[in-house]
Amino acid sequence: MKILTLISGGVDSTTLAYFLKSGGNYQEGVIFTYGQRHIKEKQFAETQGSLLGIKTTIIPIVLPVKSALKGSSEIPDGHYTDASMKQTVVPGRNSIFLSIAYAMAVSLRFDAIAIAVHAGDHTIYPDCRPKYIGIMESALQLGTDTEIKILAPFVYLPKRSIVNTGKTLGVDYSKTWSCYKGGEFHCGKCGTCTERIEAFSQAGVKDPTIYKEVK
Amino acid sequence: MKILTLISGGVDSTTLAYFLKSGGNYQEGVIFTYGQRHIKEKQFAETQGSLLGIKTTIIPIVLPVKSALKGSSEIPDGHYTDASMKQTVVPGRNSIFLSIAYAMAVSLRFDAIAIAVHAGDHTIYPDCRPKYIGIMESALQLGTDTEIKILAPFVYLPKRSIVNTGKTLGVDYSKTWSCYKGGEFHCGKCGTCTERIEAFSQAGVKDPTIYKEVK
Repeated sequence: MKILTLISGGVDSTTLAYFLKSGGNYQEGVIFTYGQRHIKEKQFAETQGSLLGIKTTIIPIVLPVKSALKGSSEIPDGHYTDASMKQTVVPGRNSIFLSIAYAMAVSLRFDAIAIAVHAGDHTIYPDCRPKYIGIMESALQLGTDTEIKILAPFVYLPKRSIVNTGKTLGVDYSKTWSCYKGGEFHCGKCGTCTERIEAFSQAGVKDPTIYKEVK
Repeated sequence: MKILTLISGGVDSTTLAYFLKSGGNYQEGVIFTYGQRHIKEKQFAETQGSLLGIKTTIIPIVLPVKSALKGSSEIPDGHYTDASMKQTVVPGRNSIFLSIAYAMAVSLRFDAIAIAVHAGDHTIYPDCRPKYIGIMESALQLGTDTEIKILAPFVYLPKRSIVNTGKTLGVDYSKTWSCYKGGEFHCGKCGTCTERIEAFSQAGVKDPTIYKEVK
């Protein structure tokens, strides 16, 4: 299968790319920037692309919407599923990412695009839920008269299972980035840092991440 | 209603913007560029935005896909519904436009986004068909947990009816652009020029367009 994978430099999409590679698929990566408050994600996505030996394409998106991830407000500390994390929603982000990736897949004759949404995303991020992914796939297929698939193999998995999968596949998690704040080290207190810490802990996998402080 | 309308500077979206204005709605326009072979559309979209007295936002999209509209091949001459016109498809274009417009609508609290797809588009462009628009609306609503509408009031109308509507509403069609080639004047021979000529003729409305030559 020829697959175009959305990679962000984080734990989930990095593991997804290794998982798909292990299945013997031809793979390329697409990296989206959309005015995030830092470029750490992009840098780590490129690093992981190199480690995987796959071609990556960077697509900058102009997106005039408000989100804490774009600097419209402070990044909230707390748990990944806290209501305060709604400030970190970029509305419809995955619709934009999937639409552009799908268009590339049609033009470049890929069989599928792949996205690393997982069960832990469902509470706060509606564009990570299974029903959304299914209907978006139908819409994109209808809109292009094609049958390219949207693969989301982790959509029902908790993050700890992703970490276990990646450990087996030899992912170097020290070269992935989660923190919303984008400092020199992971802050250890924002929603995605607490989720990362919890996932390694629950998976029983040694966390190679350096945290500025742990909540 | 607060509506964000996709405007391109052509007959259909210009008429749509006048149509929605006539309904007493608050309206803004969004203009997308995606590496088209000419900037005539953008210029006329801005002109129409000024004539309407509405705020317009220009969003450049980086889109690495092949299409005659992006210069990957020559623009074919012929009728708008000829099979050769498939070269002018930009795969999934409306999915990308609608996703970005929808994200803006969520963030800026619009009630609806509006798009000027019409019946004549259905043959060649799958992302202009009613079923696609309906499913895309569902996907975007699910992906954002909102109920913003996608308005497509012309989706079952032939282009001649759009011209009749615009004539009634006082649209100045001399300040709209259709031609795919983007020369000094409309070429009169490409698919969208032949469609434009036919629409005015069938509507019984005087066509103010200067054509280089008429097929």
